[in-house]
Amino acid sequence: MKLRQVGEDRLLDQLLPHLPLGKTVVAGAGDDCAVVEMPAGRDFLVLKTDCIVEGVHFLPGARPLNIGWKAMMRPLSDFAAASAVPQFALITLIASKQTEGEWVKRLYRGLSRAAKRFEVSIVGGETSSTRGPITISVSVVGFVERNRWVSRRGGRAGDDLFVTGRLGGALKRKHLHFVPRIAESRWLTKNFSIRAMMDLSDSLGVDLPRLARASQVGFAIEVKNLPLTSGVKIDNAISEGEDYELLFAISPRQSKRLQREWRKKFPKLPLTRIGQLDRKIENQNLPRGYVHFQQPG
Amino acid sequence: MKLRQVGEDRLLDQLLPHLPLGKTVVAGAGDDCAVVEMPAGRDFLVLKTDCIVEGVHFLPGARPLNIGWKAMMRPLSDFAAASAVPQFALITLIASKQTEGEWVKRLYRGLSRAAKRFEVSIVGGETSSTRGPITISVSVVGFVERNRWVSRRGGRAGDDLFVTGRLGGALKRKHLHFVPRIAESRWLTKNFSIRAMMDLSDSLGVDLPRLARASQVGFAIEVKNLPLTSGVKIDNAISEGEDYELLFAISPRQSKRLQREWRKKFPKLPLTRIGQLDRKIENQNLPRGYVHFQQPG
Repeated sequence: MKLRQVGEDRLLDQLLPHLPLGKTVVAGAGDDCAVVEMPAGRDFLVLKTDCIVEGVHFLPGARPLNIGWKAMMRPLSDFAAASAVPQFALITLIASKQTEGEWVKRLYRGLSRAAKRFEVSIVGGETSSTRGPITISVSVVGFVERNRWVSRRGGRAGDDLFVTGRLGGALKRKHLHFVPRIAESRWLTKNFSIRAMMDLSDSLGVDLPRLARASQVGFAIEVKNLPLTSGVKIDNAISEGEDYELLFAISPRQSKRLQREWRKKFPKLPLTRIGQLDRKIENQNLPRGYVHFQQPG
Repeated sequence: MKLRQVGEDRLLDQLLPHLPLGKTVVAGAGDDCAVVEMPAGRDFLVLKTDCIVEGVHFLPGARPLNIGWKAMMRPLSDFAAASAVPQFALITLIASKQTEGEWVKRLYRGLSRAAKRFEVSIVGGETSSTRGPITISVSVVGFVERNRWVSRRGGRAGDDLFVTGRLGGALKRKHLHFVPRIAESRWLTKNFSIRAMMDLSDSLGVDLPRLARASQVGFAIEVKNLPLTSGVKIDNAISEGEDYELLFAISPRQSKRLQREWRKKFPKLPLTRIGQLDRKIENQNLPRGYVHFQQPG
């Protein structure tokens, strides 16, 4: 049955009972606002919104379960970047009147699975219809302790630069299945002093210059050291995007201990020193990744 | 200059310095996540997301300043319904590659003006482009004290039903200029025991049955008492929507005092008793207002 025939209220009635809800949720989707218990003794509230668009972030034929997974995991990857703990999510679905109700249910199943993976409650949902491409916007709220929050801005010249995992080739498959590095990020800030961090969503070639600019430093990469996905060329690993790995800066005095303890804690996930921050603030020569609006029309 | 030529980063660079930011904002738009001080000693966190779509909630020729105003005020009206205080907003703009950068700046000016009106900080913004209609999604986070939160669910048979302001005719002009009844709602819950409340966004004919259903009661309206916008017929006042007035239920024992004190506090804004909640839970005969997806395609 098409959304046009189902009606928004009835569709929500069908979806609501299946949304993940934690114990701190007082009122979830279905009232004017969602109401939740305030996280107690957690210094900072953290907020992030992100949207994915059909034809830009997923192809029209992609499975709704995977699309929902990706839509939720993208803002959660930003929580990983900040070393924050996500707790509550709000969903906005812009569909078409022709979208099947069953498609929407599967999309929500993907959103819910991804949310449950990190104990996130889906506390609000809205659907609207247009004649344009399907768009899913997810806003996430959570917390971070004052002394564990990491921004892009704290990097210093001399800091070592690390990336988790392998770069490149994500568009082939991984971008619809990735798991944000929240556990790794929380472990990092519990045990080390991380100076600046980002998640690699737009590509190393775009995101590293952003981190350097925010920290007001330059950078030098040892290109031959980049951890490449098997079969991927260096240029592609730098420019393709959608890796959702962590990029971070740490004092070189902590690097050795970090590498030793990481191997014990996360034996299956590579951690690679790719270079360091330096004083040269000039135009950097990494190939550019994906920048919205600058693609040829 | 079109968005395609401006680039997302450069556009955000231009917009960021002008966003309203309160003192509790630690990091606003521009980092991976927004980070704000946790509201202290405020029992509940309140969350709401809402979107408006070109051709559905505003006409293509509408002024971007007014569109931005409406996009922000709609979720704030839901805060009024819950008697909550909004504090932080995240914006998602789905534009087209053909949208002018100047149009986006004016839209953000409207969003910012509306946010400032209620001391809301805009802490995150995202733009994406599609070939579909322009869509603006706004997520708002704030708080409410445990004993002042009002849902739709607490109405009891015998409660008096009140509405603020006048109903109908909003589509002609008011829907792009309305001011959510947050001050009125906060005054109500400070001084009275409000049992159930909603904002009238979809129309009295749609929203009142929702309140009654959530409270598991029926209702009886004295149609001749409805406060009509001048020149509007009763049927239209019931079915048109976009009034953004408050509808609430209160014990009849508090009604007299409410009406007396309201006239002193808000002499320019009518408050009208339109009927009461009762035990008859059956199909109610109000004309239907706007329901998404059930319009003829």
